[in-house]
Amino acid sequence: MRFEKPVPVTTIAQIIGAQLMGNKEGMVTGINELHKVEKGDLAFVDHPKYYETCINSAATFIIINKETSFPGGKALLVVDEPFEAYLKIVNHYRPFVPSMKMISDSSSVGAGTVVMPNVYIGNHVQVGRDCVFHPHVTILDHCIIGDNVTIQAGTIIGSDAFYYNKKTNRDVHYKKMTSCGRVIIEDWVEIGANCTIDRGVSHDTIIGAGTKMDNLIHIGHDTIVGKNCLFAGQVGIAGATTIEDNVTLWGQVGVSKTLTIGKDAVIYAQSGVKDSIAGGKVYFGSPVEDAREKMKEFVWIKRIPLLWEKVMGKK
Amino acid sequence: MRFEKPVPVTTIAQIIGAQLMGNKEGMVTGINELHKVEKGDLAFVDHPKYYETCINSAATFIIINKETSFPGGKALLVVDEPFEAYLKIVNHYRPFVPSMKMISDSSSVGAGTVVMPNVYIGNHVQVGRDCVFHPHVTILDHCIIGDNVTIQAGTIIGSDAFYYNKKTNRDVHYKKMTSCGRVIIEDWVEIGANCTIDRGVSHDTIIGAGTKMDNLIHIGHDTIVGKNCLFAGQVGIAGATTIEDNVTLWGQVGVSKTLTIGKDAVIYAQSGVKDSIAGGKVYFGSPVEDAREKMKEFVWIKRIPLLWEKVMGKK
Amino acid sequence: MRFEKPVPVTTIAQIIGAQLMGNKEGMVTGINELHKVEKGDLAFVDHPKYYETCINSAATFIIINKETSFPGGKALLVVDEPFEAYLKIVNHYRPFVPSMKMISDSSSVGAGTVVMPNVYIGNHVQVGRDCVFHPHVTILDHCIIGDNVTIQAGTIIGSDAFYYNKKTNRDVHYKKMTSCGRVIIEDWVEIGANCTIDRGVSHDTIIGAGTKMDNLIHIGHDTIVGKNCLFAGQVGIAGATTIEDNVTLWGQVGVSKTLTIGKDAVIYAQSGVKDSIAGGKVYFGSPVEDAREKMKEFVWIKRIPLLWEKVMGKK
Repeated sequence: MRFEKPVPVTTIAQIIGAQLMGNKEGMVTGINELHKVEKGDLAFVDHPKYYETCINSAATFIIINKETSFPGGKALLVVDEPFEAYLKIVNHYRPFVPSMKMISDSSSVGAGTVVMPNVYIGNHVQVGRDCVFHPHVTILDHCIIGDNVTIQAGTIIGSDAFYYNKKTNRDVHYKKMTSCGRVIIEDWVEIGANCTIDRGVSHDTIIGAGTKMDNLIHIGHDTIVGKNCLFAGQVGIAGATTIEDNVTLWGQVGVSKTLTIGKDAVIYAQSGVKDSIAGGKVYFGSPVEDAREKMKEFVWIKRIPLLWEKVMGKK
Repeated sequence: MRFEKPVPVTTIAQIIGAQLMGNKEGMVTGINELHKVEKGDLAFVDHPKYYETCINSAATFIIINKETSFPGGKALLVVDEPFEAYLKIVNHYRPFVPSMKMISDSSSVGAGTVVMPNVYIGNHVQVGRDCVFHPHVTILDHCIIGDNVTIQAGTIIGSDAFYYNKKTNRDVHYKKMTSCGRVIIEDWVEIGANCTIDRGVSHDTIIGAGTKMDNLIHIGHDTIVGKNCLFAGQVGIAGATTIEDNVTLWGQVGVSKTLTIGKDAVIYAQSGVKDSIAGGKVYFGSPVEDAREKMKEFVWIKRIPLLWEKVMGKK
Repeated sequence: MRFEKPVPVTTIAQIIGAQLMGNKEGMVTGINELHKVEKGDLAFVDHPKYYETCINSAATFIIINKETSFPGGKALLVVDEPFEAYLKIVNHYRPFVPSMKMISDSSSVGAGTVVMPNVYIGNHVQVGRDCVFHPHVTILDHCIIGDNVTIQAGTIIGSDAFYYNKKTNRDVHYKKMTSCGRVIIEDWVEIGANCTIDRGVSHDTIIGAGTKMDNLIHIGHDTIVGKNCLFAGQVGIAGATTIEDNVTLWGQVGVSKTLTIGKDAVIYAQSGVKDSIAGGKVYFGSPVEDAREKMKEFVWIKRIPLLWEKVMGKK
C-alpha cells in the first residue's frame, strides 16, 4: 500500500509506540510484505530466521522485535510485537469502513458501462468505460477496473488475501494479516462467472490487458498476470506469483505461490506448477515437466511388466 | 437432527403408517443417517445388504421394509418404502418454509456483527458477536455461527447435502434425501469467497474454532473439521468425513467421504485422499502416499529407460 | 441459434455486406459453430486450414474470406472478416439488452415454483412448475428450465461461453465470439451451490432429466449432459462435449472439449478425460485409463527399485 502522501517515520514510530533507531528524518512512502517491498517502504519481521532477509531487502524502514545491526540510511522501529504494529498501521491508514450501499458514493463508473442488478461496488472503486458487470458481481473497496472489461455473474473482485500470521502458542493459531492492497484489472479483460480475485495483502493484484478467464477461477493476493493470457475453468493461482504475457493455463491447473511462469508457456489441464518455469514451452503433470517428456514417461511405465518378465522370469 | 423434544415412537409409527414391533414405549430423540446415528435415534434401511449394519448400529429405532430379528430394547417400524417414511418424518418435524425476507425475523445477530448489503440470513439462524459477512453471503435456515467469524463475499453456508437414494427402476434414478442437519461454525473461523458448506443431511456439518479457509472451497454434508485447520483455495471435502485439528490442506486437494485425516497432517497441493490417513505426517499424490516416498517414485520412474537399455540392449 | 423464422440468405448477405455466390434463393434457419452446425444453418470460416471442413459440413450457408469451390445447393457469403460478419448477425438477431429488473417481465415462471430472495431471472427465460431457486441464483436471458428443478444458492445459469477468436497480430489477441445459444435444463434436475453453466456459443447447453450436480461445478458451452447423471463437487466439463446417460463423475474430475463419454461410465475422483471414452466402464487417472489397469500401474511402479537392484546390483 502506498500512503496518500509520504509520512514521517517519527509519526509511524509514535503510532506503534516503537523505539526508533537509525534514519529518523526519513519519509515512509508505503507498507509492504517482503515479496513486494520497495525503497521507501516499511516492512516487518518477527522471526530471527527472516531478520537478515528483511533488513537487507529494498525496505527502508523495518519493524522488528530486536535491536540488530542494519545498513546506513535505513531505520529500525523496535517493538515487542511487529505483527500487531503492522496491523495498527494498516488500520490507521486504510481502516475497514464497509459501505452499506450497493454502489458506494465514493466510487466512480465510466460512461457506457452497464451495471446489472445486484452488483455491489465498494468505496473508492474506479470503473472505466464500456464495461459490463453481470448480476451479483462484487467489487470491493479501492479496486480499479479499466475500460471494456466484462465480469460475469457472481464473481468477486477484491476479497481479502489468504495470509495469516501463525503462532501455535495461541488458542487461535492463525491471525489474519489485514489486506491493504488492491485489485487492478486492465482494459479488455474478461472474467467468467463465480471467480474470485483476492486483493493484495499490501501490494496489488494485477490482471494484464486482454487476459481472458473462464469460470470458477481463483487468483491469489499480490499475483501479477500478464497481457493476453488465457485461463480455462477452475484454474487456481496462489499468492505473489507472476504469470508473464500470453500464458495459457488449461482447466483445473494449479499454480503455487511466489513463482514465475515465463511468457508464452502453455500448461495442460490439471497440471500443478510448484516452481518457476521458463516461457515458450508446453508443460504437463503434477508437478509439471516438459509435456513431451511426461507423455514418454507414461509409455515407459507401461513397459515395466515386460522388463520384470525378462529379468525375473515371470510376472 | 434432534427433535425439539423426544417424540413417542408410537407417534412416529402413526405419521408414517408403520407396523411397530419391539419397544413400543420408547421416546425418539432424533433421526440420523447411518454414519452419524446415536442412541435414541431413528434410522432407516431399505436394502437387505445393510439390514444387519443398521439394526446393530447405535440407532434405537429402525424403519425397515421387512420384519427381521432385532436386539431387545430396540423397535422396528415396518413400512413398504422406508425412504419415503424418512422424508415424511423430516418434512413433518423440519418442513422447508423458505424465508422471503433477506434477513429472517426468526434469526438473531449478535452485537458488533457487520452484515454487508445483500446478505441472506434464513430462518432460525443464530449469529454471534463481532462477525463480518461480506456482500452476497447466504446463510440458510438453522445454521449457527459463532463469534468473530468472517465470511467473504458470495459464500453459501447451509446448502443441501448432495445425498440421493438411487433406484434405477425409476424414471428419475436419484431421489433427494431431504437435509435436516445444520452447519455450525465455531469462533474465529474465516471462510473465503464463493465457498460452499453443505448442511448435514441429518447430523451437523461443523467447522472448528480458528480454522481458516481460502476461496472456492467445498465442504460436504456432516463433515467435521477440527480446530486451527488451514485449507487453501479450491479444496474439496466430501460428506461425513472427519478432519482433525491443525490439518493443512494445500490448494485443490480433494478428500473423499466418511474417512478421517489425523491431527497435524499436511497434504500437498492437488493430492487426493481416498482412505483414512494418520496424523503428524506429510502426504502427496492422488491417491496420497507419504510425500517423501512419492517424490522418490518420481525419481525411480525416470530411471526406467536406463534399466531398459541395460536389460534389452537398446531403447 | 435458430432464427425466430427462416431468413432469406439475401437479407443476411445485405446485413454483412457479403458477395453472395451459389444458392441465392435459400432460407437460413439459424447460425452455428462448426461442431454443432445443421442443414439450413449458416457457419463461418476465416482460416484456409478449415475451409474444406466448413464447406463440407452440414452448413448450407458459409461466410468465408475467399472464393472457393463448393457443393451445389450451398451458398458462399464472401467478406473480408468472417468473424466480424458473424458478430454482426448475432447482434442483429439476438442483441444483448440487459434486463435491469431482478425478474424480467418477459420471463415466465410456472405454478408452484419458489423463487427465493435476490434471484435474477433475465429476459425470455422460461421456468417450469414446482422448481426451487435458492437465494442469489442467476438465470440469464433465453434459458429454459423444466419442472421440479432445484437450483441451490449462488449458481449461475447462462453465463457466456468461453470462446474467443485468436489473432496475435492484434493488441488484444482474443476477441469474444458472442454467445447466442441457451441453457436448457430438463425436469427433475438438481444443481448445487455456486455452480456455473455456460450458454451455448451458438447451439444449446443441455442438462438431461434427472441429472444431479453437487457444488462448484462448471459446465462449458454447448455441452450436452444425458439423463440421470451424477456429478460430485468441483467437476469441470469443457465446451461442446457429450456426456451420455447415467454417467457418474466423482469429485474434481475434469473433462476436455468436443469429446463423448459413453453411457454408464464411472470416472473416479480427480481424473482427467482428454479423449472420448466408451461407456459401461470404470476409469481413473489423468489422463484416464481403465481404473483397474491404472491401479496395477501403481503396483508396478513400486517394483522398480527391486528390478533395479536385481539388474544393477544395488540401489
